[in-house]
This record gives sequence, structure tokens and C-alpha cells, in this order.
Amino acid sequence: MHVAEQVLAYLRENKERLLGQLKQFLAIPSISTDSSHKEDVEKAAQFIISYIKEIGFSDVELIETKGHPVVYAEYMEAGEDAPTVLFYGHYDVQPVDPLDEWLSDPFRAVIRDGRIYARGASDDKGQVFMHLAVFEAFMKTKKKLPLNVKLLIEGEEEIGSANLYELLQKERAKFRADFVVISDSGMVANDQPTILYGLKGFTGLEITVKGPNRDLHSGLYGGAVRNPIMALVHILASIKNEDEVITVDGFYDDVAPLTDKERELLNRIAGEDYEKTVGVPETVSEKGYNAKEHTMARPTFEINGIYGGYQGEGTKTIIPSSATAKITCRLVPHQDPVHIQQILVDHIKRVAPKGVTVDVKLEELSARAYMVEPDHPLIQTAAACYEKAFGKETVFVRMGGSIPVVEWLDQIYRIPIILLGFGTPEDNLHAPNESFPLNSFDKGMETLVYYWLKVENK
Amino acid sequence: MHVAEQVLAYLRENKERLLGQLKQFLAIPSISTDSSHKEDVEKAAQFIISYIKEIGFSDVELIETKGHPVVYAEYMEAGEDAPTVLFYGHYDVQPVDPLDEWLSDPFRAVIRDGRIYARGASDDKGQVFMHLAVFEAFMKTKKKLPLNVKLLIEGEEEIGSANLYELLQKERAKFRADFVVISDSGMVANDQPTILYGLKGFTGLEITVKGPNRDLHSGLYGGAVRNPIMALVHILASIKNEDEVITVDGFYDDVAPLTDKERELLNRIAGEDYEKTVGVPETVSEKGYNAKEHTMARPTFEINGIYGGYQGEGTKTIIPSSATAKITCRLVPHQDPVHIQQILVDHIKRVAPKGVTVDVKLEELSARAYMVEPDHPLIQTAAACYEKAFGKETVFVRMGGSIPVVEWLDQIYRIPIILLGFGTPEDNLHAPNESFPLNSFDKGMETLVYYWLKVENK
Repeated sequence: MHVAEQVLAYLRENKERLLGQLKQFLAIPSISTDSSHKEDVEKAAQFIISYIKEIGFSDVELIETKGHPVVYAEYMEAGEDAPTVLFYGHYDVQPVDPLDEWLSDPFRAVIRDGRIYARGASDDKGQVFMHLAVFEAFMKTKKKLPLNVKLLIEGEEEIGSANLYELLQKERAKFRADFVVISDSGMVANDQPTILYGLKGFTGLEITVKGPNRDLHSGLYGGAVRNPIMALVHILASIKNEDEVITVDGFYDDVAPLTDKERELLNRIAGEDYEKTVGVPETVSEKGYNAKEHTMARPTFEINGIYGGYQGEGTKTIIPSSATAKITCRLVPHQDPVHIQQILVDHIKRVAPKGVTVDVKLEELSARAYMVEPDHPLIQTAAACYEKAFGKETVFVRMGGSIPVVEWLDQIYRIPIILLGFGTPEDNLHAPNESFPLNSFDKGMETLVYYWLKVENK
Repeated sequence: MHVAEQVLAYLRENKERLLGQLKQFLAIPSISTDSSHKEDVEKAAQFIISYIKEIGFSDVELIETKGHPVVYAEYMEAGEDAPTVLFYGHYDVQPVDPLDEWLSDPFRAVIRDGRIYARGASDDKGQVFMHLAVFEAFMKTKKKLPLNVKLLIEGEEEIGSANLYELLQKERAKFRADFVVISDSGMVANDQPTILYGLKGFTGLEITVKGPNRDLHSGLYGGAVRNPIMALVHILASIKNEDEVITVDGFYDDVAPLTDKERELLNRIAGEDYEKTVGVPETVSEKGYNAKEHTMARPTFEINGIYGGYQGEGTKTIIPSSATAKITCRLVPHQDPVHIQQILVDHIKRVAPKGVTVDVKLEELSARAYMVEPDHPLIQTAAACYEKAFGKETVFVRMGGSIPVVEWLDQIYRIPIILLGFGTPEDNLHAPNESFPLNSFDKGMETLVYYWLKVENK
């Protein structure tokens, strides 16, 4: 373990400088969904390029797409016999609204109570930076990496990896590796080593109900004209009931029943204290399943946004001309996202009340759920390294999040995908006051150092 | 009818100049609900003051309130034996959003196809101005008005006449008259003389559902945390069904059943062609009632606005922290607005799903419905004058709109309130492209000339 000690010592000695560089990375508002931030997204890509060139990656590319660019780099000097890992991450971030709920500027990282606060601190800039810092440490102390590395860091993960699939298809040979490592997920609790062996799939749509050709006086037209908001309400209420059961014909048809064994496995994990983490006194989950089972292993239907009519100060007595709801579903293995969209559309058209027209816009990007065998040696090795760094036994979980690239990599390469995430439930992903624990930063890097050395020696 | 001819000739000769003055009045963006327009609201009040001083009203006052001021003026020179009319109108207007749907600037009146287009053209600046122009014509041709006149023109009608009730209570003696005339309503069809004998009451509330203390990642929390938008949807769906029946216990308890006789009377009126006027192919009304019956004589429940979560471009996969709906009800005679609010609150609290908190904010201003006997001589006289000007028999209707001041004047003075409106169903009240037909302007003024002379001679 001499090498590991050297590399870890380097990381300890350079910690302040590395945190300073991470703060620079976090300062770039690379919000991929907002076209006014297009230049910032590219700036974040350029930040990575100059950093990895400095580390010693010689083969570095900015691959243009129809949207935001992909950063790609190779280090193949570990030799033909050494394994090759494809590391995937993303440098784009979620929007920051509502801005007034942030305690500090989302793009000016600050450290409070052992956490670094900024948009992207956990998802995914902070975790991408950990990997790059570990590669730096190997290069600076040993002049080489323990294995061949391909870096694929994209700028469109938060908008569904809009152009990545096409690139992966086109460059199959280029990105080919023996296994994939991704750190874009979290641990079930602070300091609790966690390996994800399943991710949910994803699909979405937007429903717009159109009524009169303009907003109408509610006194003169109330009683004659269908209110588009109320029509939308009736449509939405018909999709999921108060028991959190999705009441659309066929929605659960392809869902494999949760076995007693898996149920027991999932329930072994310490649950999140939702009152503490998100301020809800009571969890609510699908009838017959608890919160752990539903978030990890059952599909969901969520209204992400709704709008229609008057939203200003005071009262405006109108029947509005339209109303819209934005919807996404998280899917489990065997559910087909396109089929799910179709049965939702069929249902919506069937229940749409008369007197209004209903338009459904399908989200183009979707992903199937992903699952891997937790017994795979590369996963078991990761679990052991994780345990060594954190001093605690690794748990294996499925999670409700979706990473489309996981499904695509699985589909194209059929190689193991190791989901090694160091976030925590308190990270406020996609929300105001996103943060990442410095403890995860340190122990996460330690885990990676052990892992690359173990993989090298296999 | 010599006098009438003289006065009408004056109105014809001065038509262009009068329209020019109306355009100046319409150019003032007196949006009472928007505090950034406070000065404009006062400017509209000052416009009236200088105009009525110029006409010859000597006793003119700007009465300050806690909100926007009231314009008050008296002309008592017709003598003690002459009847006194209280004319009520309002100089404030509705907001103009969505602005991009206006074909011309809402505050730059233009005439197209025989209509004058501007915010307030019909509701109520245009109709207030008609009355003032008729008083001008009498003053300029006869040096006097045919009866005593009290003008009460407020600036808060579009925000529920927030401070008027207190003023009416305080100045009971000052505003006392023999009857009231209001032109803040419409005819059932263009050129169809219409007298309103019933108005709906009004009440409102705002429901906010609060869930997690911030927006959450829908993958990590979907299945554990109640979505506040979906909770709001279930609450709203439980209040009114797809048959447009309000399913809240006790909501219809005080509603007098519609008699066969009134039903027949209401159905005699030519119906509005809703496809033509507002672009809906099909009317939708309470089960058991047609659109005419529901709009005129049955209570309504309308969602005026809804919002929650992400409304921007693209997708944001969140469970939002809250969702809000703005609601107003139109009530019929015998329904008590405060009691209706209470039973709505009781219902909402009862059906609120677990896992969220529900706050209900009550709209402070409300009004009971109003009805008057259509046989009253002052109403029959108005109907005859209306018919003489328009050449068509007057119809008597109830309408779905609410004018709180009508209820208050009825409650305080118990005098006849003559609702003489000249708007049309095509006026786009409270909506983009509000307009008023020039034909109503001419024949409406003619009706008023006949009416004041008939009332003088009674």
C-alpha cells in the first residue's frame, strides 16, 4: 500500500489548492437548460480541458454536438494489458430558481459547517472534480495512472443528455472500455458507503388544455364555458389517486413484482429522516409499499410544474384561456418509456372533458431503467474499497433517479457500470442551497485511490 | 320632444370632439390592482374632475380613501321637487396581460370596424363617459339638467370596491338619492335593449398547498413525499365534478330553485353564439341546466389561476415545494358569501391529503347577489326609452357578473337600482382587445337623453 499512501499524502497536502480550483469550476453558471447561459456551459467545458491538459492527459478533445459540447480525453499509457475504464460525468448544472431561497450566491462556493455550498457542488461538478484530482495525484506522484482511462464529460445531463446518444452510437469504438465508472449519485446516509445497482428509467410529457380564445370574465361566462384549469385538474386527478397509485390502464403491466427477498434487502437500509432532510412530517407512498420500496423499486408519476390564468397580486376574476402541466415519470426495469407515454396519451385523450381541446407534447428524451448484478467482481471490489475508506460496510441499493447515459452505455457495450456516488441526502440536489460534504470529498477520493490500485492489480 | 332633439343634435355635432376626449380618458392606464399604476389611477380621477367642472358641475370633490380616491359631484339645481339620481360608475380598469394578444396598444384607443378598442372602452370608462357627455349636452343646450344628479365614480371596482362600503356607510346622507343608475353591464346581443334585474354575488379564496421545504429531486423523493401540485389537484377535483356540479356539502342549500316561469323567461332571450364570440365549440354547464340558466341563475366556482413548480423552458424534474390556486365563486340570491367561504374551507380541510399542509386565504371582499322587481315604474320607463332609441323591444335578464356596490346601495338605501348597460358580448371584458361599439355609444346616449326627460316629467 506504499503507492496509496503516497497518493493520499499528495491529496492531503494539496487539499486547499484543489478546493480553490473546485470553487473556480463551481463559479461557472453552466445551466444547460437556459439558452442565455450557452457561453457559460462552454466555459465549464474549457475549464476541464485546461485542467486535464495540465494534469497530463495529452489526448484532449472538445467534441461539438448540436447542443453543448462533450469533453473527451484519453490516457492509454498503462499499456495493452491494463484494464480501460470509461469515466462518465457532467459539467452542466440545474437552474437556480427560486434564487431568493439561497443562503449564499449559488455560483460563489462557500464552506459552512463542513460542506461546500454551490449549484453543482454535488451534482455533478464536485464529484467529477474528485476523479480528476485523484488522476492528478497519481500523475504527480507516480508519473502514471494505474489503468487506461477514457474521460467522457458532457454538458447536457440536466436536459436529458440530448445529444449524447447519437455521439455514443457514432463513436462506439472510440469510447469502448472494459467497464464504466460514474459518480453522479449519493449514499443513503452521510458516511454510509453505498453502491447503486439499479436506476430508474424516465419519460415525460406536457399537457396543455385550451378553452376559450382569450381570458373571459368569470361572471359573464362562468356556467357556459369549461374552465381549462378545472379540466386539467380532472385529467390529472384521474391519473394518480390519493393512495399514490397510478390509475392508468396498463401502467404497471410490465413492472416485475417486488420479491420478498429484495424487499427485505431494501428495508435493511437505514431510512432517510424526511422530516429532518426535507421538512415533511409524514411520508406518503404507493399503497402497499413503504417510502423505501416506492422510491427505489416502484414507478412514479410527478407533476413538476403547473400554470394557467392569473398569478399576480390580488384577484382577477377570469376563466383563463389555457392551462399547462409538466409531467415526468420514473420507470422501473421492463417498463418501456415510449409505451408508457403512449398509454398516458391514450388515457388523457379518453378522459379529456368536452368543451376544451387537449394537446399533449411528448418529452423526446427518455431512458429505460437499469439494473446490474451486485455480485460482479468489479462491484464487489468497489464495495471493499469504499468500506476501507469509510470504515463501514457498503450497502447495495436501487434508486429513483435516472441517468440516461447508463441505459445507453449498457445497451451499446454490455459492460459493467459501476455507480460509485458520494453525495448525501442533505445535498439539496436540483434545489436551492445545494451542497456536498467535505468529508465525502476526502473519503471519496480515498476510495477511488484504493479502487484504481485494486483494479490495476487484478 | 323639442328638447330631446336639441340635445341629440348637440351630441351629433360634437361627436368627434367627444370621442377624442374619451380616447384621452382611455389612454390613462388606471389599473387599480397594480400598485405601480397608483398615479395613473389618480390621473384618471383628475381627468373626470376637470371634465365635469368644465361641464358645469360646481360641487366637485376628490374623496380620499385608504386606496384609490372616489370622484364625487353634485348638481342640485333642478330643485327640491325634481327627482335626484345617484349615478355610479368606475374609472379603474383591469390589468392588460397577456399583452402580446392585443392587436393594438390597450392604452391607445383606435377605431376599427365600428368599435373603439382600448382597455376600459366598455368596462367602465366608455359607459361612464357616455353619461358625462349626455350631462354636457343638456348643460350646453338647456343650461340645466332635467333632474338633480349625484355622481359617484370610484377607482376600485376592479379590485372589489375595497374601500367604498366604508365610505357609503359614513356618508349615507350625502349620497342619498331617489334612485340609482349604473351602466356597467351589457346587452345580451348587439342592439338588443337589455335591462338587468339580477346580479350575482361574489366570494373568493386562495388555496396554497405546502409540501417539502424546498423543491426536491423527483427521482430521489418521488414515492416518499407528497407532491403539493397533485395534492392541490385532488382538493380541487373534489370541489366541482365534470358535470359542473359543485360537490361541497351545503353549497346549494340556500339557492332558490329556478321556477318554470323564470326558466321560460330566461330561455326567451337569444343565446350567445359562444363559438363565434369566444371560440369554444361546445358550451358546458351544470347538469340539469343550460348555459343561459347557469350563467344567469345558478352559482359558479371558478379557478382563476393556478401555479406551482417549474414553468420555464424545457424540463425540470422536481417535486415542487408548494402550489397555489386562486378561486372565486359567483353566488345567487339567498347565498351568504361568508357562509360559502366557510363551507369551502371546511371541505378543503376535510379532504386535504396527509403529507402536506394546506393554507386557505379568504378574499376579504364579497357581495351578496341582488334582484329587483322588473315591474318597477322607473325600470319600465327605462325599458321604454331603451326601446325608443334602439327600435327593439327591451329584454329583462339576470346576469352572472357581480357589482358589489349594487348590493351595498340596496342594503343601505333600499331604493331602485336601474342597471342600464350598453356593452355587448363581443366587448372582451377583462381580456385582450376590449372594445365598445360606436353604435352603443350613440344609441346609449340617445336612451339616456329620453330617460332623463321622462323621469323629469313623471
